[in-house]
Amino acid sequence: MSEELATGPKESPPAPRAGPREVWKKGGRLLSVLLAVNVLLLACTLISGGAFNKVAVYDTDVFALLTTMMLLAVLWILFYLLRTVRCPGAVPYRDAHAGPIWLRGGLVLFGICTLVMDVFKTGYYSSFFECQSAIKILHPLTQAVFVIVQTYFLWVSAKDCIHTHLDLTRCGLMFTLTTNLAIWMAAVVDESVHQAHSHSSSHGNTSYTRLTQDWERAGSAAGGDCSCNTAVCQVFQQGYFYLYPFNIEYSLFASTMLYVMWKNVGRLLASSTHGHSHTPSPISLFRETFFVGPILGLILFVVGLAVFIIYEVQVSGETGRTQQALVIYYIFNIVCLGLMTLVSLSGSVIYRFDRRAMDHHKNPTRTLDVALLMGAALGQYAISYYSIVAVVVGTPRDLLAGLNLAHALLMIAQHIFQNVFIIESLHRGPPGDETHGTPPREPCQGLTFANLDALHTLPACPPPAELVGPSPAGPQEAVSITSAPKDHWRSRCLKDISLFLLLCNIILWIMPAFGARPHFSNTVEVDFYGYSLWAAIVNICLPFGIFYRMHAVSSLLEVYVLS
Amino acid sequence: MSEELATGPKESPPAPRAGPREVWKKGGRLLSVLLAVNVLLLACTLISGGAFNKVAVYDTDVFALLTTMMLLAVLWILFYLLRTVRCPGAVPYRDAHAGPIWLRGGLVLFGICTLVMDVFKTGYYSSFFECQSAIKILHPLTQAVFVIVQTYFLWVSAKDCIHTHLDLTRCGLMFTLTTNLAIWMAAVVDESVHQAHSHSSSHGNTSYTRLTQDWERAGSAAGGDCSCNTAVCQVFQQGYFYLYPFNIEYSLFASTMLYVMWKNVGRLLASSTHGHSHTPSPISLFRETFFVGPILGLILFVVGLAVFIIYEVQVSGETGRTQQALVIYYIFNIVCLGLMTLVSLSGSVIYRFDRRAMDHHKNPTRTLDVALLMGAALGQYAISYYSIVAVVVGTPRDLLAGLNLAHALLMIAQHIFQNVFIIESLHRGPPGDETHGTPPREPCQGLTFANLDALHTLPACPPPAELVGPSPAGPQEAVSITSAPKDHWRSRCLKDISLFLLLCNIILWIMPAFGARPHFSNTVEVDFYGYSLWAAIVNICLPFGIFYRMHAVSSLLEVYVLS
Repeated sequence: MSEELATGPKESPPAPRAGPREVWKKGGRLLSVLLAVNVLLLACTLISGGAFNKVAVYDTDVFALLTTMMLLAVLWILFYLLRTVRCPGAVPYRDAHAGPIWLRGGLVLFGICTLVMDVFKTGYYSSFFECQSAIKILHPLTQAVFVIVQTYFLWVSAKDCIHTHLDLTRCGLMFTLTTNLAIWMAAVVDESVHQAHSHSSSHGNTSYTRLTQDWERAGSAAGGDCSCNTAVCQVFQQGYFYLYPFNIEYSLFASTMLYVMWKNVGRLLASSTHGHSHTPSPISLFRETFFVGPILGLILFVVGLAVFIIYEVQVSGETGRTQQALVIYYIFNIVCLGLMTLVSLSGSVIYRFDRRAMDHHKNPTRTLDVALLMGAALGQYAISYYSIVAVVVGTPRDLLAGLNLAHALLMIAQHIFQNVFIIESLHRGPPGDETHGTPPREPCQGLTFANLDALHTLPACPPPAELVGPSPAGPQEAVSITSAPKDHWRSRCLKDISLFLLLCNIILWIMPAFGARPHFSNTVEVDFYGYSLWAAIVNICLPFGIFYRMHAVSSLLEVYVLS
Repeated sequence: MSEELATGPKESPPAPRAGPREVWKKGGRLLSVLLAVNVLLLACTLISGGAFNKVAVYDTDVFALLTTMMLLAVLWILFYLLRTVRCPGAVPYRDAHAGPIWLRGGLVLFGICTLVMDVFKTGYYSSFFECQSAIKILHPLTQAVFVIVQTYFLWVSAKDCIHTHLDLTRCGLMFTLTTNLAIWMAAVVDESVHQAHSHSSSHGNTSYTRLTQDWERAGSAAGGDCSCNTAVCQVFQQGYFYLYPFNIEYSLFASTMLYVMWKNVGRLLASSTHGHSHTPSPISLFRETFFVGPILGLILFVVGLAVFIIYEVQVSGETGRTQQALVIYYIFNIVCLGLMTLVSLSGSVIYRFDRRAMDHHKNPTRTLDVALLMGAALGQYAISYYSIVAVVVGTPRDLLAGLNLAHALLMIAQHIFQNVFIIESLHRGPPGDETHGTPPREPCQGLTFANLDALHTLPACPPPAELVGPSPAGPQEAVSITSAPKDHWRSRCLKDISLFLLLCNIILWIMPAFGARPHFSNTVEVDFYGYSLWAAIVNICLPFGIFYRMHAVSSLLEVYVLS
């Protein structure tokens, strides 16, 4: 051991390989992360406290906090824009992978819906503002300003790799990111309070009474002590609750783009790493597909919408027809998830025969995408596992329990296989790449990365010595000769698959995002875990499940363009 | 945009820079991560379900699951050991940073305590095994076998970078890691049920009655329907509850080591990256310090133990003296945390004048350490913020509320500054390094990494062009000439600081780990949030806070050796 200590100094020469960049980035990032964590936890405390009416934290406190945060974020954004305009040398590089067009397009779309929501909210609160605190009207107005400024900011500078005032920029970006996450949390909490309120008012009789009172006061806390009687007020209230999902997605989209900007602060890009753009040229859209995927997807989409509307109508109606609505809902979901699982699986199988080079660029956007896909899926996993345990251990052995079990199992399988497919797709180079590979030296090196592990298990194929250290010869070896017609057929299949999955994910986003809650209509889990525990599980995990769908859609759009 | 698409193929040459290793590792890791996530979620569901007696999941189900997992893990470990013994070529490289001696030492220590706990558990259950299911006696026995096998396995092969059966090894390691995390979860849940049980039995009268019944049944579920009357049985029961903290730490230590092994699977190390060993040569221990840190730390340690015992005695006694006990407890903690904050701060100040080279090696162990320090601190942050909100918004304005507020604020400050100090220390090279730096070309390049950010803000110091791309000349520039006597004095200070912080962290680990719960004795938060919500917050967050202390101790020991 002591001789190893002696060897310590010897290895300072190889040290530079990692480069000083990483380290001073770490040092600079620490501060901003600490700031973000603390602000976020404070917001989290107030928001979660405000959700329980037993707790003496009122929604006005939460509104005040959010308004302050948004104003500060707006000030910083304006400062950033002014500064970058003033000194053009501030942004020497732009990350071509950051802020792809559809992400920014989605941001604008959701931003517009958020503005509409803010109008509704303002109208709702101002319809009885004499008995309201001013903050409740100030909050949506501030949010509107914040949304406009931030959307413009992200549209023009999502690709920036800024190189001035590094620490200040990091802190500013992290603070804006924190603001978006706080808005997301507030919206999610407000929506689940509303859900629980409507649910408990429909089951006003049974064991939920204690909670009902809580939720009712919390739910109506938005309306203060005044009641919302006028028709226009009702419209406003209904309207802004239906627009919540867009506000939620807006915050999350903005957060991901801000995170990538934060990662890119002070990043040094070689001019060659400008990367292939992922922008779909509109001409190529829907061309080069067999039309099977899009059409099948559209059919499922329309059927799904119909099922969703039937479900909502029947569940909100008298309880007798809830059973029937649930059966329809589950059957549709089982069919949809089953097809998606098979399709993703076939996509992965196609990749086993694909010989395109893997894309090895450092790419914060992709790393984040993969992390978010894997992480957001946990929410749905958790709900499914709780359902499985409830059904398997629980007593009822009826049709609904069986459907519920199949639904939960398929949900897990679908998430797993779709993640595998998307992640593998995101690491493929663009279609042109394979032509640039040199023919392989050994037969067993014409394999895709997924099989490269197997190399080491095969005695015939020792790990190539070039793999030690960064070797310019590396990936070319993993690439092999390609046959154009086959690949064309293959990329067509992949385009079909990605479009089909994309449409399915949209409909599976719409259902929970706009208020379908079979978790509560179906009594299996509620009876098994008790309402409060099950409500906590669903209200914490479901937002991630919903975000997963939206994020999968944007990733699948990228896959469609790449393949 | 389309022209960017055209440039896509052009940049395949630079692609290899990132190297194929990363990518095929990703592909190989995906499978094992998916396996781990799903097994862990299933275990999480059963364990959390078993904690609530309203839920029809019994602890026997949990025991059965854990026993099965441990047996499978043992089988895999034996298979791994046999295989590595069989073919010596399986482990071509060993990561010198992985499994440092004190980590393995701590593992053995905690493992022994876990074995004692298993003996107690076996005795406890076998004292009335006629009305027990056999699994309750089988479980501790299996755990003993598992602990022995796993400790041996980690002792001999924590440093391995294995290169055969990569996928199988990854899955096996991830499964063993999952098993440890499941054991940790089960222990934490069991302990908090026990805590809540003892708490509610002390406040049997008030609003906790509903919970009391829950907890009592859950708590005594360990005893099934038989009562534990005999003296020896009581001893066993008391004993194994006091040994839980060691079991918890054992699982976490094993998990971190397994994670590093997993990261090292298929890793290719240049022989030069064997790194400086972090092993403290026993002679150098306590030498080269001013003895101020150790002595002050020991005083605080002893005082803390006394305070802890007084607190436990008075709180468990009649409720009249709880107030007094809390005052003593808080005052000690405030003094301790205040000193720690100042000391960590001074440590960071010293680093501003330190000119040692930064250690730039790729080092999974250190990356994990930093991530765990930052992540585990979140638990304590959350508790503190909830306390702050409760005190600030809540009505009572007495001495205890003030102490509570000061305690919470200092807790946050202490975590922040200690993290900054530890993370900066871990990135320093060994003391010998600075002599290997070449004198700086420009005056403003003799700064530590924390100030390198400032370089770009100073007009006089443009970002050095060498920073573009990996430049062998990079870090040497960040190093400047050093003056030996000063540095000696500096490293002495750092050793004192790390030893002082180390001892403080040990005492701050002991208090909560062995059952000090001022969060419940002090009624501010309980009254503000209500018992069930506050119990959920504390029982979820506190285990991370406890783990943070233990992990900080091991990191500080490393800092002591490095400085």
